[in-house]
Amino acid sequence: MPCNSKRNIEVCFSPALTGHYGITEKNVVLIDILRATSTICTAFAWGVKEIIPVASEEEALAYKAKGFIVAGERDGKVLIFADFGNSPFDFMNDKIKDNSVVFCTTNGTKAINAAKNAEQLIIGSYLNFSSLANYLENDNHDVVLLCSGWKNKFSIEDTLFAGALCHRLITGEFFETDDDAAIVAVDLWNNTKYDLLSYVDKGDHSRRLKKLGYDGDIEFCHTFDKTDKLPVLSGETIINL
Amino acid sequence: MPCNSKRNIEVCFSPALTGHYGITEKNVVLIDILRATSTICTAFAWGVKEIIPVASEEEALAYKAKGFIVAGERDGKVLIFADFGNSPFDFMNDKIKDNSVVFCTTNGTKAINAAKNAEQLIIGSYLNFSSLANYLENDNHDVVLLCSGWKNKFSIEDTLFAGALCHRLITGEFFETDDDAAIVAVDLWNNTKYDLLSYVDKGDHSRRLKKLGYDGDIEFCHTFDKTDKLPVLSGETIINL
Repeated sequence: MPCNSKRNIEVCFSPALTGHYGITEKNVVLIDILRATSTICTAFAWGVKEIIPVASEEEALAYKAKGFIVAGERDGKVLIFADFGNSPFDFMNDKIKDNSVVFCTTNGTKAINAAKNAEQLIIGSYLNFSSLANYLENDNHDVVLLCSGWKNKFSIEDTLFAGALCHRLITGEFFETDDDAAIVAVDLWNNTKYDLLSYVDKGDHSRRLKKLGYDGDIEFCHTFDKTDKLPVLSGETIINL
Repeated sequence: MPCNSKRNIEVCFSPALTGHYGITEKNVVLIDILRATSTICTAFAWGVKEIIPVASEEEALAYKAKGFIVAGERDGKVLIFADFGNSPFDFMNDKIKDNSVVFCTTNGTKAINAAKNAEQLIIGSYLNFSSLANYLENDNHDVVLLCSGWKNKFSIEDTLFAGALCHRLITGEFFETDDDAAIVAVDLWNNTKYDLLSYVDKGDHSRRLKKLGYDGDIEFCHTFDKTDKLPVLSGETIINL
């Protein structure tokens, strides 16, 4: 339950910086809005039992050979041996209900590995926003919002989500921040939230997805509260808390 | 001289991320507004021959024993054996003219080491803003603006300067950017430039310096174009180009 003194919230802009945030005693929210964490939340909304994240095609192929359902893309194209790609719409599929799904995502798996020693590693997206915020408020730990970015570089869409969640938390009674990154993320969110998708479109990754025809994914991944699921890392797999 | 196609400019928010920017063929501008790069520019404005950056007190002390002028602080306090501290006002001193000065700065030296393989590593601050921008425009290389931050974390004041310089360069004819970090830095600059010091004060490091009584340093370090010097790294020392 919340304690009397306020807890701290920070924003980390790259998995490569995770080592500077003392995460072993903090809840870490993993953010990869376009599209890994949005897709994982969608999978749990559709009843997946667990997600097994893997970094390489070789690992994904080995699971496929054992009979697992495999999802994965490289450079925006579905892997030739995969059952489907990384789009949240791919996971709106009764096949995944009560099943394990292997999810091949280089950026996502790197970020998970970078933060696997966190007190709790929680998968965050707009889709489970309120559920996530409530969990963090009712827990006792400081929080780091970890933006996956793109190849360890800063990304606009992850930062906007970090700003949205940080804003929600610091306007409540349990959190405060003196972290420069959190302050800027909150201001960016407040300056752009009424025309959010226009600002997201300034980002490199949104432009990349639009070229591939994923406009619908971008809009869906910025929808609040489609599910109350809370995917968390448990050992090597992601389960619902 | 400028070539026909536009060159690229990116912003890197932490020395720990430098490895992701392919800097060996790029000009890197090192930014530590409060106060290392502002102080170094001031030192050259006052005629210093070279600055020798060192990371540890032990190294600084060894130079002191050989008769060098030594500047340095720890936690905002002048090192007991140093001739003066890290404030730009300390370097407005005829003693440094035509002399070498050893500069003990942990963050600064880490950032220099992280970027020492750049095509050219240039010390940037508001104090040499126009001279720096002109140099970058009249050279042929892509540019990375490297924010020193604080202990490898994002800092507001370095990001604002990166935004200012990036804005100047992309509104000219030679540069463009598709880098998310650069886009956000430019927007942050444009949103705050008319009340810059108020926004700088939201930052952790500005608050830290104010507690130590360095209000004047903060204002001075945000003054444009006090010098046309261009300090660059040459081997292990910083000289004027």
